[in-house]
Amino acid sequence: MEESKDLAIGLDLGGTKILAALISREGEILGEFECKTSTGKQSDTTANIIFAINSLLAETVADRSRIMGIGVASAGIIDSEQKIIHYAKNIGLENFPIGTILEGNFQLPVKLSNDANAAAIGEWIWGAGKGKQNVIYITVSTGVGSGIISNGQLMTGINDSAGEFGHITISHDGILCECGNRGCLEKYASGSAINMRANQLLKNGETSSLLPIIEKGLVVTNKEVATAAKQGDVFSIQLLKEAGEYLGMGVVSLIHLFNTEAVVFGGGVMNMSAFILPSIKETVAKYGIAKMVEKVEIKKSVLGNKAGVIGATGLFYLNREEQLTMNK
Amino acid sequence: MEESKDLAIGLDLGGTKILAALISREGEILGEFECKTSTGKQSDTTANIIFAINSLLAETVADRSRIMGIGVASAGIIDSEQKIIHYAKNIGLENFPIGTILEGNFQLPVKLSNDANAAAIGEWIWGAGKGKQNVIYITVSTGVGSGIISNGQLMTGINDSAGEFGHITISHDGILCECGNRGCLEKYASGSAINMRANQLLKNGETSSLLPIIEKGLVVTNKEVATAAKQGDVFSIQLLKEAGEYLGMGVVSLIHLFNTEAVVFGGGVMNMSAFILPSIKETVAKYGIAKMVEKVEIKKSVLGNKAGVIGATGLFYLNREEQLTMNK
Repeated sequence: MEESKDLAIGLDLGGTKILAALISREGEILGEFECKTSTGKQSDTTANIIFAINSLLAETVADRSRIMGIGVASAGIIDSEQKIIHYAKNIGLENFPIGTILEGNFQLPVKLSNDANAAAIGEWIWGAGKGKQNVIYITVSTGVGSGIISNGQLMTGINDSAGEFGHITISHDGILCECGNRGCLEKYASGSAINMRANQLLKNGETSSLLPIIEKGLVVTNKEVATAAKQGDVFSIQLLKEAGEYLGMGVVSLIHLFNTEAVVFGGGVMNMSAFILPSIKETVAKYGIAKMVEKVEIKKSVLGNKAGVIGATGLFYLNREEQLTMNK
Repeated sequence: MEESKDLAIGLDLGGTKILAALISREGEILGEFECKTSTGKQSDTTANIIFAINSLLAETVADRSRIMGIGVASAGIIDSEQKIIHYAKNIGLENFPIGTILEGNFQLPVKLSNDANAAAIGEWIWGAGKGKQNVIYITVSTGVGSGIISNGQLMTGINDSAGEFGHITISHDGILCECGNRGCLEKYASGSAINMRANQLLKNGETSSLLPIIEKGLVVTNKEVATAAKQGDVFSIQLLKEAGEYLGMGVVSLIHLFNTEAVVFGGGVMNMSAFILPSIKETVAKYGIAKMVEKVEIKKSVLGNKAGVIGATGLFYLNREEQLTMNK
């Protein structure tokens, strides 16, 4: 009977939207339903989540008995064992018992991961890290985070907080970070850092096609930096190249620590990967221990912004394969 | 019959000595035999290793049928699966098939780890990291290395090279390292780095009880720095405190990446731990993300310079427990 269960529901809880999707054993999205994240009470968020999953189930023709469970990817600090979202600022959640809520409403097993870990699992099972035992997924958006697969296992650490790649020191006497640490990578190579640096340099009068925006008293966005770079603006290209260099130095440390096989980049900033990724690769080749870096694949996410919702279901498929192996 | 096997042989291959020891299930050394590392041909090293183990077996009264196998801890680059020491400069070994040699001579199963990983396993099962699922062992001697236990597993990476903690960047525009990387921790906080800095600063005329050594045209050793520190020499105390600060910044990055429970320090430089360890702890408390660092135990190795030879046998005991659990 267990054999007939071949689908899982993925739920991605983010700062702007709630996305529910039906995911096949092959990591395909068979149906999806999206709604906005409530900014109100937690009870509203609960109602939205239940509505999203019910809508998904209503839309899809699949037999419900085929569904193994619900995998949740959430921003913030979570407890995967208790299935509680301790604190997720941008979703407005605190001590949110997502496991109990979903199990109670849908009579299905629930698994909870943080968003970077879910995306890492997705890329590992079905995406850019497929077939490997050691894969690191790095997300570069407002901040920088990561999910780490090591020796064929998701590395969670003691409190599901492993993978804070944005908060490793790359400059011992560098910029102070909000986290309390000094010289955090995130202060040099995140979306926020790129944006802050762009505006600072432009205010100092750097030559760029973006200068008129500053002269009008406006703030340059990363989207504008991306567009300018595509149009050949040397300032913007150089800015993204530098971000890639910082990320590359961080990746060198990761490869030296994890002896990994693949580093996969996702997150909004990777929309500018044409300018950032080559710079990351060059830096890794230049500074890494040759034997450790030469075979490492460094590439862009395959699942893109669906890595979280797809990967959230991955733990069901992984466990299933382990069970199948043990039954043999 | 398997139940009656309750001992293992540990073999520690280092730059100066070969140490063979009989280790109990409790991690106790029941007997040991030591000889110097041959600087000659590999065949001499082979003969020495066999002699050491035979001497150990002759010395101990234990029934040979009680021995599960031989666990080897080796410096250098190894392949734990093929049980080959690819390259260990200071033992003079290259493509050394230690597994085949020992299996052929003693008809016992062999397991091979690199020395930092073996020590990490030892401290994890029997030492300062006992009972935890996430433990990082850091060795600070000439260089800096580490062995990482994450989610109850030794993290090896794809080529047994994980844990190169000495080669993470703590200064993106820092000193070039022999490994090719820039600003490696090892260039700031290893035994070599401490020694180089001591001599440089003294040559520049820093006030210290060590100054007469320099004035005689001699080189100050770390042993002399340690003695001076114990006698209250402010220069030496400050030097070790600074090394602790650099190590502490590295440990912050490790805790942020691994969400670990314990960080255990070993290696020769830790003979000066009275001056270094408090500085490491202060730095971690100051710069780490509070929720991630506040419960982490930072302490000195319990097994000391026997961590490698004891820990080398750990994989036998670990596997055994897994087997026992599976048989239940």
